[in-house]
Amino acid sequence: MHYVHGYSDRETTRLADQATTLEELLLSDTGYPSGSCVLEAGCGVGAQTLPLARRNPGATITAVDLSAVSLELARRRVLDAGLTGVAFRQADLRQLPYPDEIFDHVFVCFVLEHVDDVERVLQELRRVSRPGGSITVIEGDHGSFLFHPRTHASLHAWNCLVQAQAALGGDSLIGRRLFPLLRDAGFRVSTVSPRVLYADARTPEMLDAFARKIITAMVEGIRDIVLRNGLSDPGRFDEGLADLRCLASSPDSTLSYVFFKAVASR
Amino acid sequence: MHYVHGYSDRETTRLADQATTLEELLLSDTGYPSGSCVLEAGCGVGAQTLPLARRNPGATITAVDLSAVSLELARRRVLDAGLTGVAFRQADLRQLPYPDEIFDHVFVCFVLEHVDDVERVLQELRRVSRPGGSITVIEGDHGSFLFHPRTHASLHAWNCLVQAQAALGGDSLIGRRLFPLLRDAGFRVSTVSPRVLYADARTPEMLDAFARKIITAMVEGIRDIVLRNGLSDPGRFDEGLADLRCLASSPDSTLSYVFFKAVASR
Repeated sequence: MHYVHGYSDRETTRLADQATTLEELLLSDTGYPSGSCVLEAGCGVGAQTLPLARRNPGATITAVDLSAVSLELARRRVLDAGLTGVAFRQADLRQLPYPDEIFDHVFVCFVLEHVDDVERVLQELRRVSRPGGSITVIEGDHGSFLFHPRTHASLHAWNCLVQAQAALGGDSLIGRRLFPLLRDAGFRVSTVSPRVLYADARTPEMLDAFARKIITAMVEGIRDIVLRNGLSDPGRFDEGLADLRCLASSPDSTLSYVFFKAVASR
Repeated sequence: MHYVHGYSDRETTRLADQATTLEELLLSDTGYPSGSCVLEAGCGVGAQTLPLARRNPGATITAVDLSAVSLELARRRVLDAGLTGVAFRQADLRQLPYPDEIFDHVFVCFVLEHVDDVERVLQELRRVSRPGGSITVIEGDHGSFLFHPRTHASLHAWNCLVQAQAALGGDSLIGRRLFPLLRDAGFRVSTVSPRVLYADARTPEMLDAFARKIITAMVEGIRDIVLRNGLSDPGRFDEGLADLRCLASSPDSTLSYVFFKAVASR
């Protein structure tokens, strides 16, 4: 599995900024009972691990990821925040080093969009879930990103992100598919709840975070992959990037994006 | 002004179905004080007039529209529902037959997307608004429609709707622009709230209403305009329409759409 956004320092910062902006929107209604065992599948650099552990001090969280480097960053962050109760382990989500039915709850956030065999990963997550346990999946859907003002170049650069992710075997339009994916893996879906992040010039800090730290940073981060795969040329791509960057400070800008949060039971 | 969806009986039914499905999502937080004077600008066949009057029995609602035929249908519906307190008047939104500053509140729903001089309409609505009064604008944004499964043909048919509306001078992507439009017309925007309509096979009635009565009916209704304007050919368009129709009953279907509701003060 290739992670489209890479593993640079800049990328680590982007993920932390993104998590702070989104925490209230995405995690405020996720609470695990004291004493429960939670698997965070694909914790990356710990962007969600931190708020998850902070919000659920009584739960035991096991955070796994394929990348040892990311895991080390996540471990350090959680430690620096003075949080205990999180165990880290390097693992492939297609083949987890755990017996059947041992986790009460599974939590997956911004992971399945990068996976090239999502059905197999979900089946594996079901295998390690206790009957009656829950799975929470949060994914974006890049088709939902609306912005104003638009230019041909900025639309092109944004579309390159969707194509780059597809070229690596992922699906950045996965948000809309959570219901059939979870059902087909044998889960009973209880809710699929779309959540919109919206910003305009009335909230300049949020507009900046959304446009610059999330959107532009994400598109900047795939520049090499886009050019290497011939999805664009430097002139056109960089023009689009510049136009996207302008969204952060234009008085006319509006941005919106839909995240899908699904909760299902085993 | 040409109304992209036309004025057929079928279209009247579509608008009524759509209003019932959406009422809770869009209108539940709109309440006008007893005794206040409300202008509904562009009431059409009364799809919103009915719930608006039912929910605000103490308010005096003036519903205006350019089409005398639509107004008559709206009037009859409101009468049949036993609602009083709604006055109807034929009027051009660009030049309203009212003195300055006489309405306490203005309500506009699914109208601006069809207007070819939206700035002028908003200025006119501001003119008739009392200082300190409010304007509520609800519009969709066709760029936000996400569906699964997708085919080339269904994506094409859906895009024809966006193009047909543009060919008539409208903008079906207007939802994302509400903030700069209202601000530039001299209103002070207090909230822009995106609301997502989502359905999948777990709620078959809602899925059917969404896919068949809203989406497919809307695309069916523009068939003539699309073909007349050379935006598609019958074979391709009808294939897309058939694929969209399948969304209503497929066990894998998911649909989502974002409406933008803005509230601003004069």
